[in-house]
Amino acid sequence: MDPHIRFTSTRLADGRELVYVDDSEPYVSGAATRRLDDPRPLRDRFAPVPGPDGMTVPVVGPQMRRDPLTGDWIPMATHRMDRTFLPAADACPLCPAKPGAAYSDGEIPDTDYDVAVFENRFPALLQVPGHEAGGDGTTLVDDEPLWQARPAAGRCEVVVFSSDHDASFADLSPRRARTIVDTWAQRTQALSALPGVEQVFCFENRGREIGVTLPHPHGQIYALPYVTPRTQAMLGQAAAHRERTGRSLLRDVLDAERRAGTRVVLESTHWTAYVPAAARWPVEVHLAPHRDVPDLPALDDDERDDLAVTYLELLRRLDRFFVDPVSGASIPLPYIAGWHQAVVGPGRDLGRLHLQVFSVLRAPGKLKYLAGVESGMAAWISDTTPERIAARLQELGSQEVGSGGARPREAGA
Amino acid sequence: MDPHIRFTSTRLADGRELVYVDDSEPYVSGAATRRLDDPRPLRDRFAPVPGPDGMTVPVVGPQMRRDPLTGDWIPMATHRMDRTFLPAADACPLCPAKPGAAYSDGEIPDTDYDVAVFENRFPALLQVPGHEAGGDGTTLVDDEPLWQARPAAGRCEVVVFSSDHDASFADLSPRRARTIVDTWAQRTQALSALPGVEQVFCFENRGREIGVTLPHPHGQIYALPYVTPRTQAMLGQAAAHRERTGRSLLRDVLDAERRAGTRVVLESTHWTAYVPAAARWPVEVHLAPHRDVPDLPALDDDERDDLAVTYLELLRRLDRFFVDPVSGASIPLPYIAGWHQAVVGPGRDLGRLHLQVFSVLRAPGKLKYLAGVESGMAAWISDTTPERIAARLQELGSQEVGSGGARPREAGA
Repeated sequence: MDPHIRFTSTRLADGRELVYVDDSEPYVSGAATRRLDDPRPLRDRFAPVPGPDGMTVPVVGPQMRRDPLTGDWIPMATHRMDRTFLPAADACPLCPAKPGAAYSDGEIPDTDYDVAVFENRFPALLQVPGHEAGGDGTTLVDDEPLWQARPAAGRCEVVVFSSDHDASFADLSPRRARTIVDTWAQRTQALSALPGVEQVFCFENRGREIGVTLPHPHGQIYALPYVTPRTQAMLGQAAAHRERTGRSLLRDVLDAERRAGTRVVLESTHWTAYVPAAARWPVEVHLAPHRDVPDLPALDDDERDDLAVTYLELLRRLDRFFVDPVSGASIPLPYIAGWHQAVVGPGRDLGRLHLQVFSVLRAPGKLKYLAGVESGMAAWISDTTPERIAARLQELGSQEVGSGGARPREAGA
Repeated sequence: MDPHIRFTSTRLADGRELVYVDDSEPYVSGAATRRLDDPRPLRDRFAPVPGPDGMTVPVVGPQMRRDPLTGDWIPMATHRMDRTFLPAADACPLCPAKPGAAYSDGEIPDTDYDVAVFENRFPALLQVPGHEAGGDGTTLVDDEPLWQARPAAGRCEVVVFSSDHDASFADLSPRRARTIVDTWAQRTQALSALPGVEQVFCFENRGREIGVTLPHPHGQIYALPYVTPRTQAMLGQAAAHRERTGRSLLRDVLDAERRAGTRVVLESTHWTAYVPAAARWPVEVHLAPHRDVPDLPALDDDERDDLAVTYLELLRRLDRFFVDPVSGASIPLPYIAGWHQAVVGPGRDLGRLHLQVFSVLRAPGKLKYLAGVESGMAAWISDTTPERIAARLQELGSQEVGSGGARPREAGA
């Protein structure tokens, strides 16, 4: 952890946690005159609500049900139906409060911040005190043993990457990117310790094309009370590979990609980015550390500094991937970037940290839609080849002054 | 099979198969004066193409690679990059040819038809003679054992539901719907017999919101050389259930839904439609036969007639599900409808026919996007409850004159 970074935990008016993460003067934690409290008249999230007969009803939180056909848990976040959808820029809930304003519509009471993390106001997963996930909380829908239900008792956090409404992750300085890496690591550690949490997923959705409702640069963290289907599939493959070879699947994949070289996009001291040999998305890159580490908290200082620089270079190349055929201008890529980390419980030893960045844009103005084959059968068809995506990303690196395809440190510095 | 239905197999100019399915006079098969041949100067799909050195190069067809992290096969249909995208209505490739025209831009040479099926011109899966899927065809990417590759040797067909460009499935008569049921059944049988095919998936994507490029009413059929991830998950759950209880999982789910009743939307003599207890989509309905059958070809005449009527009633209710808040008009639902059928090979005995219809529309003008959690982790969050969806679909049934929630035959007749 960078010693210059300070974490300051506060509470919003409804009891949600908000953590300021500051990497530069004036630190929030040392500024007694700045407003850290939330002036909004929000009611306590967990206070009992008035019932129809005048009695109060305790808050129980969202439920999740197990789909007997697939075995997947499906959280049912019915209250999210009413969530904020593309508000005007002057009502952005992620912008800092205006100095001197008596009341703020935003989620962040302070008038400035570097990075901020807070619990989502419309969470898909919520730990209500007394309703933590676990064996005890299991019930049956309609008394049928086929249909198990449990509290969807996890946590959903929002990570605000910058106080600048119009920035994007790729615009940040390596210093700020490093602060975000430390934030992901600190939150992963904190959320993994919550009762019932089995997996922590840090991710960013960027772009209206994939439904991002707030343009202000931000990511999300889900602390899940179950292991997701993709992670389950990866654990199954990794266990079979270890059984067969005695080795780590994710390590062997990284080594094979570096050996083949054709799909390697970036290689720094501690990290390699490559288009995987069986990429399924129109644009897809994986970024993995050279050392075997289970998750972000396990990265050392050098690896984190290197990651900040390497990831920025990768994002900047992705933003040059597609060019408008008329204007010749680059098209900022709508993307999803997600960190695959080792799970908290059984199978933790099979995990190996890696980032997956991918896009649904297959050409300027053309999206890959997830229709019958993908959404109905979970079967992916690629419209390109991994080698073609890699060649384009390699070529984009060499356009930068001072940057070779395999030398991201100079390019990003 | 309805004895009034006639199948007439023909060939397009490039060698692709086109099957006319006629249910009324004048039958194509008996009309010698009508044009069945394709006048376009298309070259044979499988003819060797000229290479750079003047030698000809044999066509090898698309490849698929196995993702070592998940075990999934990923077909790479690179040639689909250039496919037709929202052409003008007068250039619709699914409309009948204009009588007397010397040349047709469309895929269907006849000047009229009831239902037509043809091989997709831009297929994700293609059986090139001599390159069928199978053990022999397995190669390695970059000589690495982690990366298996095989020919993506399947078949992709387009099913045109009507010659009326502006119709939709819900507009069809029960008679025509029955013809389509017979078409799906006949194609399932024919495609299951192709070498290397492991699964046949009949589906319809409807609506621009899910990327449908041609508005003319049509569906698709994929004959896959592998078992899809969703089907694999269902087979795993069904095998575990049989091991534990000795019973069929899909049968037990149907029985439990009928016993609970709360989520049942329609019940006819041979079919029940219900919102599954752990539905994951904003709108989702499953339709299952009362008798245990593996696939569409196994349905008898009564079940097919009943299906035609019941399915039309279900689609009509779905098209009334969302109402424009300003005009009060119904919003035609963008949907995906897919038939889950028993696989061709091992696990066939665990399959039981059912239809899954679902939508990504969660409110008028609001889509459910598949972002980080869904696309990155294959984890679904529902924004509603199955009971709410079911209540709405039950209420829509009773608005029709003569139609009770459980009496689709009158409503659809």
